[in-house]
Amino acid sequence: MRQALRLNKFVNAILLATLLFSYSAVSTADGPLPSWQNTPTKQAIIAFVEDITDPKSPNFVPVPERIATFDNDGTLWAEQPMYAQLFFAIDRLKALAPKHPEWKQKEPFKSILNGDLKGATTAEGKKALIELVMATHAGMTSEDFSNIVKEWIATAKHPTTGRPFTKMVYQPMLELLTYLRANGFKTFIVSGGGIAFMRPWTEQVYGIPPEQVVGSSVKTQYKVMNGQPVIVREAGINFIDDKAGKPIGINQHIGRQPIAAFGNSDGDLEMLQWTTSGKGKRFGLLVHHTDAKREWAYDRKSTFGHLDKALDMATKQGWTVVDMKSDWKTIYPDF
Amino acid sequence: MRQALRLNKFVNAILLATLLFSYSAVSTADGPLPSWQNTPTKQAIIAFVEDITDPKSPNFVPVPERIATFDNDGTLWAEQPMYAQLFFAIDRLKALAPKHPEWKQKEPFKSILNGDLKGATTAEGKKALIELVMATHAGMTSEDFSNIVKEWIATAKHPTTGRPFTKMVYQPMLELLTYLRANGFKTFIVSGGGIAFMRPWTEQVYGIPPEQVVGSSVKTQYKVMNGQPVIVREAGINFIDDKAGKPIGINQHIGRQPIAAFGNSDGDLEMLQWTTSGKGKRFGLLVHHTDAKREWAYDRKSTFGHLDKALDMATKQGWTVVDMKSDWKTIYPDF
Repeated sequence: MRQALRLNKFVNAILLATLLFSYSAVSTADGPLPSWQNTPTKQAIIAFVEDITDPKSPNFVPVPERIATFDNDGTLWAEQPMYAQLFFAIDRLKALAPKHPEWKQKEPFKSILNGDLKGATTAEGKKALIELVMATHAGMTSEDFSNIVKEWIATAKHPTTGRPFTKMVYQPMLELLTYLRANGFKTFIVSGGGIAFMRPWTEQVYGIPPEQVVGSSVKTQYKVMNGQPVIVREAGINFIDDKAGKPIGINQHIGRQPIAAFGNSDGDLEMLQWTTSGKGKRFGLLVHHTDAKREWAYDRKSTFGHLDKALDMATKQGWTVVDMKSDWKTIYPDF
Repeated sequence: MRQALRLNKFVNAILLATLLFSYSAVSTADGPLPSWQNTPTKQAIIAFVEDITDPKSPNFVPVPERIATFDNDGTLWAEQPMYAQLFFAIDRLKALAPKHPEWKQKEPFKSILNGDLKGATTAEGKKALIELVMATHAGMTSEDFSNIVKEWIATAKHPTTGRPFTKMVYQPMLELLTYLRANGFKTFIVSGGGIAFMRPWTEQVYGIPPEQVVGSSVKTQYKVMNGQPVIVREAGINFIDDKAGKPIGINQHIGRQPIAAFGNSDGDLEMLQWTTSGKGKRFGLLVHHTDAKREWAYDRKSTFGHLDKALDMATKQGWTVVDMKSDWKTIYPDF
């Protein structure tokens, strides 16, 4: 009996070892980041990771400090012709409109419901956007909102590509997330988008769990309704996780300075600035949208994903800039 | 060469297997939670964990959803005769006093500097406490504050036991944290204490990294000072992570409902209520301080760790109550 048990343990050990070694062999054969062209951009990423994970390197970083933060819109998934969350908000507005006849006369709702988004946003700018978000993102429990998001993300399609929004993510960035995690990194999203809009699907799509998502938020209240404790979402801004708000959000949620940060717009400037100013080796990267054919080409003049100051700073600060057209073999994952 | 490599892999596999099996053997021989008496309290904890980790159980919970939240003061470490953070604040006030001659005439600073804490806190109550915290916890960068905390926690001693504060933690609770993590739980601190006061040492003391600490906070600003980006701590409250603030803080930081929550006072009532009201099997536990000899005995009349309503609710809600005197073999870890 004892002999049998030992033999069994032995066989298990061999099986385990086989699994471990075969996995490592496969990943070495293909190399990391297969959808990235073998350009200086990919080389810079790999050189950084190999350096900070090498115990013999003076730049070695212990695993718990391997924090990487990623912007979402325009960095992990497409943000044109406008943010996915805006499509969501408009779909919600339309769904809720029958219960709000007053919206037919009231801006910005009137224009949006008439399909005139430009009229709605240019007329009152950011105020209109906030009104739209408050009308569609508040006045319900956090659980109800999460379910609404899950249903929308499972069915909504991008207006120009016809792809589900979850297939508008960038394949090279998915590989980058996986590569970093395989090298001991903890990957976080730090986005100007709504934290509660992202959390219901980031784990499935990016492998990033809700507790590693930082974003903008509305005020919330804890209430016991009909004996059931709930978190109620209220029509007021709690936190805007954009520009200087990004380092603040990172400090609040993560409590340590990342060693690598990934963005694509001026909204990410402070996050990259703060990350790369830390002691030791750091990495900052901007995704530059240069591919009008396979995706979109935009930067200094774009409303969504405005990239101007951060692009000028990149050279001086030593940030890596992805030229989407020449650095990425593919843009979106296969269906 | 190839043969040698294979042999080497084989030896590695055996070594790995030996390590794995011997670890598992040791932990089985001793059993989990060695500092807990074998009472219904310990049995309730183990029964819950074994149930929700059993893939065949109807109550099985997948690993990513195994979120456990712990209050800190009075739950993971001692909070008598007052919160450790208050000792810290007073030490800071004394250290800063030479630069603030006006404090000699100004309450609550005058009383505190004269060693009359009761005068200071009863006179103006919470307002005095907030003034004390703002005077000592703000007006510096987050990095400087972190260094001040690290230095204090490495040297300060508890006034009645003479132990370092980091040895005023509860050995049974350290074992509980380890036991839960070994069973796939992610453990979080959710404390009314300052998030920035806890983060510099929770990883070393509890194995809980900064990004898994939720707490109260002051307002912060991102600034570039002399070319160096910093987070500056300001004299204003950003968030109070106590009572109904605990579910709010959990929702904000973690984004999912815990399946187990551990507290010791009415400040934890809403956290336990929210946690245990969730779908599926849940676990709520209160540490009841009943051991005047080895620790302190207090509940309904205590200023720090006031436990009254939550104790009344425990039976009705099915929360487990630790009787510290009879459930714990030891209180503090050996030096």
